[in-house]
Amino acid sequence: MKLASLPQGRDGRLIVVSDDLAWYADADHIVPTMQGLLDDWDRHCPRLEALAIELAHEAIPRKRFHEREACAPLPRAFQWVDGSAYVNHVELVRKARGAELPDSFWTDPLMYQGGSDDLRGGREPISLANESWGCDFEAEIVVVTGDVPQGVTPQQAINYVRLVGLVNDVSLRNLIPGELAKGFGFVQSKPASHFSPVFVTPAGLGAAWVGGKLNLPLMVDLNQQSFGRIEAGEECTFDFGVLIAHLAKTRRIGAGTIIGSGTVSNRDADGSPGRPVAQGGRGYACIAEQRMVETIANGQPVTPFLKNGDTVRIEMRDAKGRSIFGAIDQVVGQA
Amino acid sequence: MKLASLPQGRDGRLIVVSDDLAWYADADHIVPTMQGLLDDWDRHCPRLEALAIELAHEAIPRKRFHEREACAPLPRAFQWVDGSAYVNHVELVRKARGAELPDSFWTDPLMYQGGSDDLRGGREPISLANESWGCDFEAEIVVVTGDVPQGVTPQQAINYVRLVGLVNDVSLRNLIPGELAKGFGFVQSKPASHFSPVFVTPAGLGAAWVGGKLNLPLMVDLNQQSFGRIEAGEECTFDFGVLIAHLAKTRRIGAGTIIGSGTVSNRDADGSPGRPVAQGGRGYACIAEQRMVETIANGQPVTPFLKNGDTVRIEMRDAKGRSIFGAIDQVVGQA
Repeated sequence: MKLASLPQGRDGRLIVVSDDLAWYADADHIVPTMQGLLDDWDRHCPRLEALAIELAHEAIPRKRFHEREACAPLPRAFQWVDGSAYVNHVELVRKARGAELPDSFWTDPLMYQGGSDDLRGGREPISLANESWGCDFEAEIVVVTGDVPQGVTPQQAINYVRLVGLVNDVSLRNLIPGELAKGFGFVQSKPASHFSPVFVTPAGLGAAWVGGKLNLPLMVDLNQQSFGRIEAGEECTFDFGVLIAHLAKTRRIGAGTIIGSGTVSNRDADGSPGRPVAQGGRGYACIAEQRMVETIANGQPVTPFLKNGDTVRIEMRDAKGRSIFGAIDQVVGQA
Repeated sequence: MKLASLPQGRDGRLIVVSDDLAWYADADHIVPTMQGLLDDWDRHCPRLEALAIELAHEAIPRKRFHEREACAPLPRAFQWVDGSAYVNHVELVRKARGAELPDSFWTDPLMYQGGSDDLRGGREPISLANESWGCDFEAEIVVVTGDVPQGVTPQQAINYVRLVGLVNDVSLRNLIPGELAKGFGFVQSKPASHFSPVFVTPAGLGAAWVGGKLNLPLMVDLNQQSFGRIEAGEECTFDFGVLIAHLAKTRRIGAGTIIGSGTVSNRDADGSPGRPVAQGGRGYACIAEQRMVETIANGQPVTPFLKNGDTVRIEMRDAKGRSIFGAIDQVVGQA
C-alpha cells in the first residue's frame, strides 16, 4: 500500500495512492492524517488496504495524483533520528574532516536526534539563506515505526516498521565541524529535511524489502546529471532492525518515529572509495563524498556545495523501472 | 494563566488551573489539547484567559486540581531541545569527564536535540532498567514557543515564548562519555524527560520573568533532603531569547517547541564551585555536580547516582512560598 499527504493544516490530509503513482483516493474519512493512522495502525490499516484495492480496481472515484502537490507524508513528527547504516559514508566524511574512524563504528551504530517540527515535501525548494554554509544533500532510506517497547531485539524491531520512504537529509557542511566539536550533535547544521512524496508499507515493497534492508539502487541526480546509482542493499552494515533496537535500548519509541539509514554509500569493486558516475562508478548520495574522493585523487575538492538554482533529484525505481516513492526533485532557493 | 493536561489519548486534554493550583476548569471545549492551543494561540488564548478569570472568581463550575493526576503538559512534542544557559554546570560536568571548557562556551550556547515522542508527567516514576547506567536528575527551566521565523534576534525571540515550566531532564551519566565520544550527541543516554504538572504564561509569572530569565530559586530535594536551592536568574549566561535565536539561525521553529535552559547552577559567593546545601551552600540541580565537587575536595565522589526507590522533587515557589508550576515529585522505579 502507498500513502501520501496533501497539504491541509499543519499535518496534511491522508490519501491512498495507486501503485503506479498515477491516481489517488481520499482517505481522510477513515483517518484524517498520517500521524492519526500511525497512532492507531491496527484499527485503520485494514480499511485503508481495502480502499487501496478498490482504487487499483477502479471501483471508487479516483483523482489524478501529482507528486508535486504532495507535502511531506508527515509534515511534522514526534521524532526523527538518523543512523549510519553505511559506514563507508561515515569513513569518507570523517576523512574529509581529518577524523579517524573508530573500529567500534562497525558494530555500534552512530545515530543523531534530528529536528522534526518542520518536515518538508520532496518538491519544495531547499531553503538556503547563506551559500557559505556549504549546503549538501544526503539521500537516504527512512522507515516510520509504530510504538516500540524499550529493549526490543533487532529481529523483533523489524516488525514495528510501518512505512518506508526516502529523505534528503540536508546538511550545512561548513557548520558541522564547529558544531560537532562542541560535542552535543547537530542543531544549526541540519536544517529541515525533505521527504519523498509517497511512503510505502513493507508489504508494498515485495521482494525488495528483506531483513530490514531495501535491495534496490538509489538514483541521485545533481543538476540533471547522474550523480549516484548506489545499491541500498549492499554494504549496509546496520539494517533497520539494528537501528530501531539501538534507539530503544533505554526508552520506548512513540508511533510515528522516523528513522533514517544515513547516507547510502558503496565502495568500489576493488574496495577503494567509489568512483564518480562519470568515471564508470556508482557515484555518491552526497556531495561531500565526491569532494573527498577528489581530494584523495588530486589534493583538493572540485565539486562545489549547492548554490542557489542547483537542482537535486532522488528516486528509487523497481525492477521494471517504475518509481516507488515518487521523486524528491527540488531546486535550491533563497530562504 | 496556568495550564495543564489530564490524561486522555496520546496528547492529553487541556485544562485551566487556578493560580493557587487548587482548582481547575475543563478547557477542551475551547481547544482539545495543549498542542492544539499552541498551533493556534492567538485564536484560543483570549477565551482561555477569560475562562481563567471566571475560574478565579468562582463564576463557573470548578473541580479540585491534584498535581498527581496531571500528565506532562505536552505528552509528546514536535521538538525538544536543551541548551546550556548555566555555563558553571557545563564546566563542572566536563571536569568530571576530564574535558576542558572551551572559551567559546561563554558566548556560543551548547544545545542538543532531544527525543520528544514520549514526555512524561512530574509524578510518574523515573523508569530505570539498569542502575549501572548512572541515572541522574537535571532540574531545569523550560519554555514552549509558538512558530518562530528563521533568523530572529534574541530580543525578538523572547516574544515567541508562550509558556514556561520545569523539567527533570533525566540523564544516564555512565552512557554519556561513550556516546559523546561518537560525536553525534545524546541518544541512548537521554531517556524520557519529566515535566512539571503545570505550565504558566510569561504574564502569569509577573515580575519574576524578566528578559527571558526567571528570577526565582529552584528547589531540588533528593530523598526528602534539600539538595539544591539555586537562583535560576543568577549566572544564567544565555537567556531564553539567545537560546531560541540560536536554534532559529538556520531554520524556522514549529509551534510547541520546548527549549530547556540546561541544568540550573550557581557558583559559590567566592567564585568556587558551589558548596552542598548541608555545608551552607546553594547545592546543586543534579548529582553529577555534587560528585564533581566531592572529587575536587576529596579525590573521589561520595554521593551515588540514583537507585531504585530514590525520590526526586523539583519545585519553584514565588515570594510568598506558593508553588508556581506544581512539583515534579517522583520515585525511581524499575522500568
